[in-house]
Amino acid sequence: MKRRALLSLTASAPLIATGCAAPSSTTSTSAAPAATLQGTGDLGVVIERAKGALTLINTSRREAVGRVTGLGDLSHASVVFSRDERFAYVFGRDGGLTQVDLLTQHITGRVMQAGNSIGGAISADGSLVVAQNYTPGGVKVFDAATLELLADLPAHTASGERSRVVGLADLPQRRFIYSLFDANAICIADCSNPRKPQVTTIPNIGRQPYDALVSPNGRHYIAGLFGEDGLAMVDLWDNPPRVRRILAGYGRGQQPLPVYKMPHLRGWAIAGGHAYLPAIGRHEVLVVDTATWAEVGRIPVAGQPVFVMARPDGRQVWVNFSVPDYNRVQVIDTPSQRVVQTLEPGKAVLHMEFTPRGESVWISCRDDNRVQVYDTHTLQSQARLDVDAPSGIFFTARAQRMGF
Amino acid sequence: MKRRALLSLTASAPLIATGCAAPSSTTSTSAAPAATLQGTGDLGVVIERAKGALTLINTSRREAVGRVTGLGDLSHASVVFSRDERFAYVFGRDGGLTQVDLLTQHITGRVMQAGNSIGGAISADGSLVVAQNYTPGGVKVFDAATLELLADLPAHTASGERSRVVGLADLPQRRFIYSLFDANAICIADCSNPRKPQVTTIPNIGRQPYDALVSPNGRHYIAGLFGEDGLAMVDLWDNPPRVRRILAGYGRGQQPLPVYKMPHLRGWAIAGGHAYLPAIGRHEVLVVDTATWAEVGRIPVAGQPVFVMARPDGRQVWVNFSVPDYNRVQVIDTPSQRVVQTLEPGKAVLHMEFTPRGESVWISCRDDNRVQVYDTHTLQSQARLDVDAPSGIFFTARAQRMGF
Repeated sequence: MKRRALLSLTASAPLIATGCAAPSSTTSTSAAPAATLQGTGDLGVVIERAKGALTLINTSRREAVGRVTGLGDLSHASVVFSRDERFAYVFGRDGGLTQVDLLTQHITGRVMQAGNSIGGAISADGSLVVAQNYTPGGVKVFDAATLELLADLPAHTASGERSRVVGLADLPQRRFIYSLFDANAICIADCSNPRKPQVTTIPNIGRQPYDALVSPNGRHYIAGLFGEDGLAMVDLWDNPPRVRRILAGYGRGQQPLPVYKMPHLRGWAIAGGHAYLPAIGRHEVLVVDTATWAEVGRIPVAGQPVFVMARPDGRQVWVNFSVPDYNRVQVIDTPSQRVVQTLEPGKAVLHMEFTPRGESVWISCRDDNRVQVYDTHTLQSQARLDVDAPSGIFFTARAQRMGF
Repeated sequence: MKRRALLSLTASAPLIATGCAAPSSTTSTSAAPAATLQGTGDLGVVIERAKGALTLINTSRREAVGRVTGLGDLSHASVVFSRDERFAYVFGRDGGLTQVDLLTQHITGRVMQAGNSIGGAISADGSLVVAQNYTPGGVKVFDAATLELLADLPAHTASGERSRVVGLADLPQRRFIYSLFDANAICIADCSNPRKPQVTTIPNIGRQPYDALVSPNGRHYIAGLFGEDGLAMVDLWDNPPRVRRILAGYGRGQQPLPVYKMPHLRGWAIAGGHAYLPAIGRHEVLVVDTATWAEVGRIPVAGQPVFVMARPDGRQVWVNFSVPDYNRVQVIDTPSQRVVQTLEPGKAVLHMEFTPRGESVWISCRDDNRVQVYDTHTLQSQARLDVDAPSGIFFTARAQRMGF
């Protein structure tokens, strides 16, 4: 219904309708309100992974405020936001890139841009949205307003085959950094001329980079290596950027345990001169000195950590776990480096997101079909929302941070 | 071509038009446009100090998008934003507190709450706006939605007279911290019950605190002392909070020079484990180790620094100066701790504000009636805006940061 109206609208002005207008007369599935004037700094989305839908939320009211359906396969989805915090760009596992207007609560643009995709990024000036793809392996650059394809950058191995792309993040000056899982390389694409990006490749960075992060200040890009012990780090303030191997033996310990789920590097917490990392296959969080990048401690936790996330002030680090311990969340006090609380928010905790100033954290409990909101100071429940199989939670404040 | 098509398309759906193109029927000066749907993450205000007005700006388009008049004496004004980034709260020198709707571009609330005021803060949950006052000395707590006065907290000296209040900042859990210029004290008001705040006073913190800041992570509150050498610091993670004197002889050197303008402590940059501080009455920026709070270096600059501000990634620190050097701005590269560029944006540079991800900086040049926008990477001009006697520049992203 909604989709049909959109499609007919965009058919007559394909370059323009996306990013701007949505049909004035329609609403999304479950009685979304008519679009009203409102600020967008306290909005966000929760991925409904089974239904291919978004629940739209307001973090001031701590309520669901709408729902948008028709986003395809969201079994491993991620989201970035437009610079004005009005539009969400949703990268679906099936290669769908969908632009959603949080005000009208409509899909305002959608392209199937790959066969298998795992995320994307947006430039600081808000003009470019970039997707990283597994199949076919490479990166695609889109006009953020229209979703017009501006550049297609296939990624190749030395033998000329396609490589899967992981760990995409934005850098200043319309540049993007990413890693090639099958080519053991890190690439930086300068998209200042977005129809003719210039790609710089750093080869031999280590075997099989599987995910990566940029530190909150945008200086360090760190890729996890699946094919060997350790991590690859690039100091982006070096000119030219060079790679350095850090944390050999990262997290594995003497007797490696079976790994149920690879940790998400995006979950890494950097707070107060320390990085807090999920150990791989062990019930530990690693503490690393960010000046030397050497391990300086380990904190025992309740399971194999997946996301290890700092509250924005760095005073706490919150940890969730893989099967079979994924009903728990633990809170680490960073000054004492001890677990100070174990919470049981619900079944199958998949993701957490802090409000921008850190007073609350939202936690998705997939198998309870619920999002649980906590006060991070009292550790008491502030709200519960019914959401079908929630996974990723993303707030618009991400638009104003580097490296997402 | 593209724009024309857009306008005809959106003409039938006026509520939807903005966010993409300039509104068809509008804009700027005094006649506020019909409010249109738009995101609020890229909005901001520039204080017109002589006219008692605000120029409303958009940092994506780098343009003025409207103007609001009637705010009284804005000769020393500051601004905080509502949690949804829709409303600006403007604290005027004359004690006026004005709530401005950035979407409708109208004043939506205004109270004269004191005779002489120098700023305010807003709680992380967005519910409370607090003003700090010189005359009569004290703090007032308002409902952020209605501007209803919830609590009046007079500040007193030991002998029972009123003390001027400075250095107000928000803390977690609806608490606010501030300093008493005439009582040599720092106070923390717990407004979790906003009609009956509980005030904790830390006495004997040093003579005449004149301004203060909270570190970006919310941990350290640092007050400058007018009546003695040095600074007073409170580690807010201590329980109970205690005060400690740091940087004795702060910035004065062997032969103190005449001070033309007290530096603004809110301008302090904290980046990469160092704080960059304006020396008092000297042509230097001080470098301080934030682990030990000891001075570790001095950087010669072109005049007496007023604002010393870090780009959000900490790679650069920008400095402006008091009379007679206030036509200049210098850029310090933090890894090398050297001045790498001297700019001359215009006459009487009063303030600077970085975009949230740091790609641009906006600089007010009061005596040229101009705001100058620079690309922080190329150091080239990106835009110029005509604004009458501009002073403070404030972007909505402040809503999502601690300690403002």
